[in-house]
Amino acid sequence: MKAVILAAGLGKRMGYMSKGTIKVAGREILYRTLEILKELGISEAVIVTNSRYGEEYGEFIRKYGFNAELIINRHPEKGNGYSLYLAREHVDGKFILIMSDHIYEKAFLERAVRGEGLIVDASPKYTCLEEATKVKIEDGRVENIGKHLKDFDAVDTGFFVLTPEIFNVADDLLLERGKAELSEIVKMAKLGVTFVSGFFWMDIDTPEDIKKARKLIVRASVKGKGDGFISRYLNRKISTRISALLVDYVTPNQMTIATFLLGIFSALLNFVSIPLAGVLYQVSSILDGVDGEIARASMRTGRFGGYADSVLDRYVDFAFLLTLAYVSIKEPLWWVIAASAIFGSAMVSYSTERYKAAYGSDIYSDIPAMRRLIGKRDERIFLTMLFCLAGRIKVLLLLLAILTAIRTAGTVWLVWKNREN
Amino acid sequence: MKAVILAAGLGKRMGYMSKGTIKVAGREILYRTLEILKELGISEAVIVTNSRYGEEYGEFIRKYGFNAELIINRHPEKGNGYSLYLAREHVDGKFILIMSDHIYEKAFLERAVRGEGLIVDASPKYTCLEEATKVKIEDGRVENIGKHLKDFDAVDTGFFVLTPEIFNVADDLLLERGKAELSEIVKMAKLGVTFVSGFFWMDIDTPEDIKKARKLIVRASVKGKGDGFISRYLNRKISTRISALLVDYVTPNQMTIATFLLGIFSALLNFVSIPLAGVLYQVSSILDGVDGEIARASMRTGRFGGYADSVLDRYVDFAFLLTLAYVSIKEPLWWVIAASAIFGSAMVSYSTERYKAAYGSDIYSDIPAMRRLIGKRDERIFLTMLFCLAGRIKVLLLLLAILTAIRTAGTVWLVWKNREN
Repeated sequence: MKAVILAAGLGKRMGYMSKGTIKVAGREILYRTLEILKELGISEAVIVTNSRYGEEYGEFIRKYGFNAELIINRHPEKGNGYSLYLAREHVDGKFILIMSDHIYEKAFLERAVRGEGLIVDASPKYTCLEEATKVKIEDGRVENIGKHLKDFDAVDTGFFVLTPEIFNVADDLLLERGKAELSEIVKMAKLGVTFVSGFFWMDIDTPEDIKKARKLIVRASVKGKGDGFISRYLNRKISTRISALLVDYVTPNQMTIATFLLGIFSALLNFVSIPLAGVLYQVSSILDGVDGEIARASMRTGRFGGYADSVLDRYVDFAFLLTLAYVSIKEPLWWVIAASAIFGSAMVSYSTERYKAAYGSDIYSDIPAMRRLIGKRDERIFLTMLFCLAGRIKVLLLLLAILTAIRTAGTVWLVWKNREN
Repeated sequence: MKAVILAAGLGKRMGYMSKGTIKVAGREILYRTLEILKELGISEAVIVTNSRYGEEYGEFIRKYGFNAELIINRHPEKGNGYSLYLAREHVDGKFILIMSDHIYEKAFLERAVRGEGLIVDASPKYTCLEEATKVKIEDGRVENIGKHLKDFDAVDTGFFVLTPEIFNVADDLLLERGKAELSEIVKMAKLGVTFVSGFFWMDIDTPEDIKKARKLIVRASVKGKGDGFISRYLNRKISTRISALLVDYVTPNQMTIATFLLGIFSALLNFVSIPLAGVLYQVSSILDGVDGEIARASMRTGRFGGYADSVLDRYVDFAFLLTLAYVSIKEPLWWVIAASAIFGSAMVSYSTERYKAAYGSDIYSDIPAMRRLIGKRDERIFLTMLFCLAGRIKVLLLLLAILTAIRTAGTVWLVWKNREN
């Protein structure tokens, strides 16, 4: 199947911009759609735009190397039905039709590409109903469609799975009236509908929509499976707000390095003020979520990013506990406890990651009980801050040494209990 | 395809034992063959044995749950060609014929099952030529076959890929002479040959053969990819000898626990004698290879075993360096260095394993340059022993702190250089 993208609108409410190439959360709307479709096996596209935005879309296709043809609609006044009609020579058999200004999450697209006719949503969560195109359905087919329907069953998602017969309907309408809107074609064809409800999708009409979409995308990009208590209820609430602010300006790698430097700085701060160092360490823990959130939100996830981030995190923890112990402790026995806390911090991560290396899958997915095991990094750092503020460093080190040992032992025990081999 | 196993021999030179169920390196010969064939998609077997060993093979099939039929040859005096003939009602189409007393490595079987006719080896490395059945080949077919051929081209591997036509030849011979040897049938049928040369396979005729096979199997079970210099040239030379001695009596898990306890004991020995502790630590490093060797040699590899072994290794290193530092050091600055050495030891492993978790493949396979990076565990432990013997503990800790930091940085750098994403 090919994908036909309708991108001939003028984007008036956007201040006349080609909406498909507008960046939302660090990525062009159309990049998101085309990239996910490629993953789903649909790698060829036909983009229909107007003469005003032709160059922009040409540049976009070249930049990312998409396998897409560009068609210029020289008569945008004939309606978006005419844009669809222009694609008729470029598709054969079943094809997909998408609006260039719609953002869809992957789970939506996975289901939509397997549907037929007009994909509708019975319970759109993220689209403002007033602005939405409503659909009245009878016998599984479109009975009526329009923005101002009072009586309707679902909302038009801007996603269609069509056969070439649709071009005959468009042809008829164009011959009769000299212009054709997609909604008129859909109604005349009494197009079949497929329900795909409850997933994230939005059409971007105004600058406010961009802000709203950015927020939703960043929130959805939290990889929460391995999050501890503090992450879930404190760190993520703050980090997603920061991510939404930064996603358009900062790359994930820049964020990783900045967070690492802040962590090392917080460790050095132990020489000056332990309470202040503790607070900054907790701040770096909050920021530690941002690189991953930005990476997933802007579709820039790379395996090296995750790898380097994990290694650097271990060094931050090491540096912090080491400087803390150095300025607070003189006796060898307490150094043994400090070394146990340092080593234990590394082992918590090691025993988790080593599982993935051995079993090839995520420990939190395979063993849900892992999520109830306390002592994750976010929780340990929060504890560290509290004890730094209270000035109880020896108690902290003892607590961390015990906590990390228990968590590592608990991890091995859970793996053993769940093992098949 | 089904596999027909000829197991009706009396095993005279073995002191009358059913050879297929004899354990070699901790596993029955036939278990090895049937288990690998199952991995290759051949899961049905027909075992032809005599009335003396029928119960033994029945027990063997039940114990491991193999999908195998048992046929009793009540006239073993009619030759092994008659055993083959008895299988005729139990196969349809192409089938595999194997001798129960042959051990084959997986690489051999992978190729052999794709061959046709008699599988022969032009350069058998592990079989004594005097005892071998030789084959003279003409036009790709067996011209002559026998133990005492002077002029021959290859050696019979005891592995055949046959069609039911072979039963007609067997039938003719049995009618004519009342008995039939497989070699006569093969010669009469002028069976085609396929060369599969240079891989490990052996037939087990005598107790000496068992010893020889055990040694070769253990040696082949060294997982050498991640081995450092000391492992390759010292530890493995000793550990494989120990594995060959223990493989029939000790399970991999027992060995893992024993090695761990010895490592912890060596750490505690630092309170008594540092040089002695250093030597014992190196001994535990040698023994550390044995559990994996035994596991692979006896086909008992489990993911949990590898996982637990890795985690326990970190604790042994931690315990040793911690006790060493505790008995040798008083000043905080040196404790910082000791903590760096302890943490660094964990990070070397972490940065390697985290790669597998991120990229899903082995870092030593993906990045061959990793093998030249010094500072692996075997090398560090050997260094530790040397410095313990020399009584230079502070120098050792400093060296380890630097070495592990360099190796971890080198690992991250190599991953970065080789990254695609």
